[in-house]
Order: sequence, then C-alpha cells, then structure tokens
Amino acid sequence: MLTTAASQDARSAVQLADIAVVLVTGLVLGRLARWLRQPVVIGEIVAGIVLGPSLLGRLPGDPTQVLFPADVRPLLSAVSQIGLVLFMFVVGWEFEKQLVRPHAGLAVQVSLLSVAVAFGMGVGLAALIHPAHATVAGREIPFGAFALFMGTALSVTAFPVLARILTDRKLLSTRVGSLALACAAVDDVLAWYLLAFVSALVKADGDHMALLRVGALSLCYVAVMFFAVRPLLARLVRRPAALGDRAALLTAVCAGVFLSAWVTSWIGLHAIFGAFLFGFVMPREPDLARKLRTPVEQISRLFLPVFFIVTGLGVDLGALGTGGYLMLVSAVGAACAGKLIGTMIPARLSGLSWTEARDLGVLMNTRGLTELVVLNA
Amino acid sequence: MLTTAASQDARSAVQLADIAVVLVTGLVLGRLARWLRQPVVIGEIVAGIVLGPSLLGRLPGDPTQVLFPADVRPLLSAVSQIGLVLFMFVVGWEFEKQLVRPHAGLAVQVSLLSVAVAFGMGVGLAALIHPAHATVAGREIPFGAFALFMGTALSVTAFPVLARILTDRKLLSTRVGSLALACAAVDDVLAWYLLAFVSALVKADGDHMALLRVGALSLCYVAVMFFAVRPLLARLVRRPAALGDRAALLTAVCAGVFLSAWVTSWIGLHAIFGAFLFGFVMPREPDLARKLRTPVEQISRLFLPVFFIVTGLGVDLGALGTGGYLMLVSAVGAACAGKLIGTMIPARLSGLSWTEARDLGVLMNTRGLTELVVLNA
Repeated sequence: MLTTAASQDARSAVQLADIAVVLVTGLVLGRLARWLRQPVVIGEIVAGIVLGPSLLGRLPGDPTQVLFPADVRPLLSAVSQIGLVLFMFVVGWEFEKQLVRPHAGLAVQVSLLSVAVAFGMGVGLAALIHPAHATVAGREIPFGAFALFMGTALSVTAFPVLARILTDRKLLSTRVGSLALACAAVDDVLAWYLLAFVSALVKADGDHMALLRVGALSLCYVAVMFFAVRPLLARLVRRPAALGDRAALLTAVCAGVFLSAWVTSWIGLHAIFGAFLFGFVMPREPDLARKLRTPVEQISRLFLPVFFIVTGLGVDLGALGTGGYLMLVSAVGAACAGKLIGTMIPARLSGLSWTEARDLGVLMNTRGLTELVVLNA
Repeated sequence: MLTTAASQDARSAVQLADIAVVLVTGLVLGRLARWLRQPVVIGEIVAGIVLGPSLLGRLPGDPTQVLFPADVRPLLSAVSQIGLVLFMFVVGWEFEKQLVRPHAGLAVQVSLLSVAVAFGMGVGLAALIHPAHATVAGREIPFGAFALFMGTALSVTAFPVLARILTDRKLLSTRVGSLALACAAVDDVLAWYLLAFVSALVKADGDHMALLRVGALSLCYVAVMFFAVRPLLARLVRRPAALGDRAALLTAVCAGVFLSAWVTSWIGLHAIFGAFLFGFVMPREPDLARKLRTPVEQISRLFLPVFFIVTGLGVDLGALGTGGYLMLVSAVGAACAGKLIGTMIPARLSGLSWTEARDLGVLMNTRGLTELVVLNA
C-alpha cells in the first residue's frame, strides 16, 4: 500500500514541477507576446509548441518526454480543464445580456452563413485531398465522412481562445466583441452537432438517432438552466447568510459550475458550454460579483495557461514535411477565406459598418491548434 | 486523434462531476461537524468514508465505483495535491518565526522524545502481532522491517490534518498551537527518514546509503532556501512592479511553491515540506500578504477538501472484520498512549504547565487515516 501511495505521490510531484515549468514559460512568452502587441494567449500556445516535440523534443535525450512523461499528461490536462471550465464560467457571467439580446438574430444569421461558407470550402478541399489521405491508420475513410470532418474542422471558431483574446483586450463589452463571442458560441454548438453526426456516420453500427438525442437533451438542459436553476440561484444568493460565508459560497458555486460542465459533456456537447451557461444564468448582483468573481477569476487565471500550453504540447510542426506544409497553407487559406467572407457579407447585409464587419470576420477567424493538427491525419 | 481527445475529455468531465460531488458532500458534512463542535476537517474525512467502500460502495450496483472509477481517481488525487501543497505553503507563511524560534529547542526535544516513546510502543506491538501478519501479498516480511514500519506508523503526526485543525480553530498563533505544529514538522521529517531507511532495509538490493543521501540533500536544500531563495524573494517582492501585476505575481509564487514541493519529493521527503519551507522563507510584507495570501488561500480552500475526501475514499472500515477491529483498537490505543505520554512528560519537564502539556499531547495525537489503514496490511 505504501509503495503505491509513494509512486502516486511521485507522479503528483512531477505534475507539480510540470505546472511550475508551464507557468513560468507561459509568463515569459506571454510577456513577450504582449511586448510584440500580440494577445497573451498566443504566447502561451507558442510556449507549448516550444516545450513540445517541435523544439525542446528535438534536443538530445528528448527533454519533452523527460519533463512531461506520458502518465503525467492526463493529470496536467485534468488541472487545465478546471482552469478552462472556470474561465468559461466567468466569460459567461460577464457576457452581458443587454448587449447580446438585440443582436441575437444577427448572431445566429452571421454564424449560420459563416459556417455554411467555411463548411463548403472544407468539402471542396476534401474533394481535392481525399485521394491522398483516404486511409487513416489502415482504415478506409469514406468520402462523405471525410468531407464532413474537413468541413467541420474549417468552420469551427476556437471559443476559448477567442474568449481569452476578448477578455485580455477588454473587448467583451464592445458590440463587435460580444457579437463575435455570440457567433462563436453558435458556431461551436453547430460544430459539435456536426461532429456527433460525423461520428454516427463513421461508426458502421452507428446510432443514427444520436443527433436528435443530443439536440433534444441540450434543449432540455438549456430550459432547466433558465427556468429552474436561474430563479433558484437568484433566491439563494439573496439570502444574507450566503454572502456572509464566502468560502462556502465559492465552494458551492464552483461545484455548480463543474456539475453543469459535466452535464453538457455527458449530453455530447463540450464541457465548456455547461460552464458558460452556468455563468450566463448567474445573478448579476454587484456584491456577488466582487466577492465571488474575483477568486474564481484568480483560480482560472492560474490554471488556464496550462490548458493552452498542453494544447501546444500536442503539436509537432516538424512532422508535417514539405507536402504537409503545402497542404497546411492551403487548408489555412481556405479556412480563413471562408470564415472571413462568410462572416463579413452577412454582417454587412445586417447593417454593420464595413469596419465592424471586417473586425468581426477577423475575430471569427480565431482558431485553436486542434483544428490545424487535425489536418495532419 | 479526435476520438482520443474525446475520451480524454469525457474522463475530465467525470472528474469535474466528482469534484462537484466531493465539494458538496464536504460542505454539508463539514457544517455538520462544526455544529457538533468538531473540526471541519473531520467532517470532510467522514465524507470520504461515506462516499467510499464503507458505506456508499455497499449499496446495490456499487455507486462508489460508478461515481469514482479507477481511471479518474489519479486525476482527483492530482487536483487535491495542488490544494494540499498550496495550503501547506500558506501554513508555512503564517507560521510566525517569533513564536517558534524561542521554542525551537523545546520543539526538537519534545518531538524526539514523543517519537521515541511512540516508536517503542510500535515495536512492542509489532512483536505481539508479527506472527499473524508476517506474510503480505505472499511475501515474507522480516521482523526488523515490520517493527520499524509499525514504529514509524505509530509515531507519525498527521501534519496536514493538524495544520488544518489549527488554522480552522485559529490556534496557529498561540504558543501551544505553534509548538504543536513545530513538533509535528520535526516528527514528520523524522518519520520520512525512518521510512526511507525501512524501504532501504526491505529491498534486498537496497541502497543502504539512502538515509545518508536523503539527509545530506535535505540539509543542502534547506540551506539553499534560507541563504539564496529567501534574500532573492525579499528583493524581488520589494520591486514596485512585482506588486503591481497581481496575476503575474500569483503565477510566479505558485510556480515557486510547486517547484519547491517537487524538490523535496525528489529528495525523498514529502512534497508538503517543500511547500511549507517556501512559505516559511516568504517575505512578510503586509501588502504582499493581502494581495497574495488571500487568493492562494482561496484556491487551497477550494481544493483541499478533495484531498481529505480522497483520503477517506481509500478506507474500507468493513474489510477489517472482528479480529481487525480488535487489533485496530489496540494499535490506536498504543499509538495514543505513546504519543500522549511521550509528549506530555518532556513538555512538562521543559517548563510548560500541565494544561499546556496536555493540550500539546492531544494535538500531537492528530492522525491521518493513512496511519490507520496501514495497520490493515
């Protein structure tokens, strides 16, 4: 028993050292990014690439493997997931309804069109490259699934990365900023539906009702959050005892966020939507914001860089080769063009100025690294 | 790639749900404990036992396994380790030197004697029960190692549990409280040395220099912390820029704590000592305390209950059986008597009043559950 406990402790200790390395590297490269007038989050993702197989892993002795052994990575992921979920909760909380509601129709319209255009470009690209990439890990991938997958990959906006850029730059309270985040939310929900659909297609014995089930369950969950959890929270929070015991309040609210994140993940969407939704239905009492939002923000700010760096760790730029780079460039080009055009035109038609439409298009172009890595299949 | 990411996400999501369950159960049973005038931490450990195999796991369908599957427990452990380490850092920071220094000699004296008496009782108990427990998992355990192990198990004070009780009850700034913590620190360092020695003995090809190596390395580390890290921190923290960017300061200090925790764990002591030591050498500027201690405390307060509950989860009171319970009672009796007598007498001889000596003895009797579980081998 003691030996197991000891080896578990040793792994936890390596995880502590890893988090320390990640925090310091993220701090330094985040500063560098700010000095170069880039978002801090870009510095953190680059920190991950630097610590990963693309750079540190090429040094003799593979320091990346030594520093981040395979059995410790899930622990880091788990810690970063907590940071991410709490961060999305804060974003949801700050996502002012008054700014969104008048634009809700616009957001849906822009999102649908931008997804449609980017998705079309993805399918086009898939038609071009499918012959060379039809077999993945010895399995034949049918063109339909491949095209759906490419289309989805190209139409996704990286919700957490965009949210991070908007909060860092204090753009969340502007019209374009909140519109971009609303569009990205609609986009991402759409993308998760498409992904659920694709995986149902790829599985031979696939459950073709999956899409319907995900849709029905998530509608139910949104209804429960708005019509049951929101009034309950509002009543709970107004009790003076609740605001008195800050530690208990923090614990209870974080438990709620984690639970909500788990529900959306169980439904088949991503955990971040549950956290975002919980933030969205939180009461907006100023006292509550001061006492609760600050500590949650501090916790998320501490662990969030781990998420971006772990993401970067998974990327091996060196493994692409020349052909890979060419394909990457064309894919990125198609993705950017699709997103930019698909966002700007409906935005302009819906009454935004050209400048606003362009800014929105650029913001919607925010991508995570996962989307790029996916193309290396 | 996407499938792996999805299954990893699903595991992280279960971990989120688990943390939520843990937080809520801990909150409720912690409140109950406070209402019963017991330390909150007792409620949290009981919460772990309730959620574990002793109670919830006996219900049909084994809800404990469903709720806390084996592949998620390391993730929970990892999260709780972060809470524990940050908590020990805060304890180290609050552990006022002026209170300890005049008593340092006393602390060492009391600790050594209390360990010696409790250790002797452990060896005695080992002589009684060794014939019935000589074979563990099909391997013969020599009496020497068994006796050393029992002695160590009985002489340990649960440092984190004691620290938690002292901070919850605001006893850390009292003479007896700080003395108890100092004694527990000395005790635990001693116990880890003994444990290193035992494991060197048990391993046939054991490295008999282990004890010497652990000793030399830890002396070096303490010296580095006091003569290099402490002045460096003091200088860093006095720069106005450092206090200006709170988020960066929080990140840097947490990174330092994690790194220090890893160093002591790598040396062969426990990670908590590194965290405690880092807190001990932190500058005590009031501004710094306000800006930095509060967020660290909030983070640790959120995740620390997970540690106590995960500890409780590992306990199966039902597996003991009648003979086991008898042995448990005698072992606990021996442990308590050894600790109480071993603490009170040297404390009284060193000039404490009988009341203080008794309080110190009771506090030093704080045990973790690990010590009890260990007896079930």
